[in-house]
Amino acid sequence: MTTIAIGLYDRFTSLDALGPYQVLSSIPGATTVLCAAEAGTVSDENDLLHLRVDHAFADVSEPDVVVIPGGFATRRLAEERHPIVQWVADVHPRTQWTTSVCTGALVLAAAGLLDGLPATTHWMAYDSLVGYGAHPTEQRVVRAGKIITAAGVSAGIDMALTLTAELVGSEIAQGIQLAIEYDPQPPFDSGSPSKADPAVLEMIRAFSEQADASA
Amino acid sequence: MTTIAIGLYDRFTSLDALGPYQVLSSIPGATTVLCAAEAGTVSDENDLLHLRVDHAFADVSEPDVVVIPGGFATRRLAEERHPIVQWVADVHPRTQWTTSVCTGALVLAAAGLLDGLPATTHWMAYDSLVGYGAHPTEQRVVRAGKIITAAGVSAGIDMALTLTAELVGSEIAQGIQLAIEYDPQPPFDSGSPSKADPAVLEMIRAFSEQADASA
Repeated sequence: MTTIAIGLYDRFTSLDALGPYQVLSSIPGATTVLCAAEAGTVSDENDLLHLRVDHAFADVSEPDVVVIPGGFATRRLAEERHPIVQWVADVHPRTQWTTSVCTGALVLAAAGLLDGLPATTHWMAYDSLVGYGAHPTEQRVVRAGKIITAAGVSAGIDMALTLTAELVGSEIAQGIQLAIEYDPQPPFDSGSPSKADPAVLEMIRAFSEQADASA
Repeated sequence: MTTIAIGLYDRFTSLDALGPYQVLSSIPGATTVLCAAEAGTVSDENDLLHLRVDHAFADVSEPDVVVIPGGFATRRLAEERHPIVQWVADVHPRTQWTTSVCTGALVLAAAGLLDGLPATTHWMAYDSLVGYGAHPTEQRVVRAGKIITAAGVSAGIDMALTLTAELVGSEIAQGIQLAIEYDPQPPFDSGSPSKADPAVLEMIRAFSEQADASA
């Protein structure tokens, strides 16, 4: 039985974790486990979504797959070596796949996993990766051996489908894509810095710098 | 202040609710509220995701926007007139927008909102809509006056961006799309029945019929 562990912490970005959760929890024969430093309530960065988490990191010591979501808190988590950093460092040697979404890559980086490797993260956070010796790569999903990093927030869905195909084959991955009707048709084409209108890009940069400063 | 209420119930499909949540909770000047028949824990259809919900439907009597996610339980909710059906019927006359994702459309239908109207739902559930007098429409997002229905699961993200543009304009909607880096690049093109491989389509039909039968 494959155990897929999604590592949470207060102020995670909900879709970073729950996009992959939707895909990965649909894999036949795999068990998805939400875990955090301690069992209890974990809240997202809006403090509006409160998850009851039943498993502490200490209870999930040999996951086959690890998924680390991002959030505005990750830079601080990385610097302060939050327990999630040590957990990732501890379990990584025995995982099949160690993965991140968005700035979850900073947790992998702080655990020493990305030194010298190509990796991606949210487009606003490339510089933070450089400080850990990683090579930021402008792709939606980046593989380096058994490490897979995904770009910002919604990229976790694409990453999870890629990961599913690795775990159980492309037919099941395609089946899950069909089951969640993932035939995306965004009403705008504004999902990356190279495509967004300059005024929109500037608005989000300014907003994110504020949010980062208060994180 | 715009209040956006996401109505939950046990066995909802997580991404149906939390895809829109990610988008809508980012709207400046709006408040997103998760609510259910009673305050307490609400679990998703995998019984793996447990949300603490602080607001009962009775506390959220005049939302400006309603979002109803789907799940395998919705046909039964509709038939048994679960409290969410009455809540939708009660609040709809005063909403700005009443919306659904996936088989959440069956809740709107059971509340009497879709009679004679075009609507969409998960591709497996078109027939169920017909029973309520709705006209199933094979589009990702369907508007009928102030009612917006979205197709299966992941379509809620597209719907929420459309809704955001209606509420606060397309520049903010594009900004949120950029912030969540929603530039989808699924590794397969299997997200709708017309695109999926026939064997994949058959696998998911068989699986869903089983899941439906046990719902």
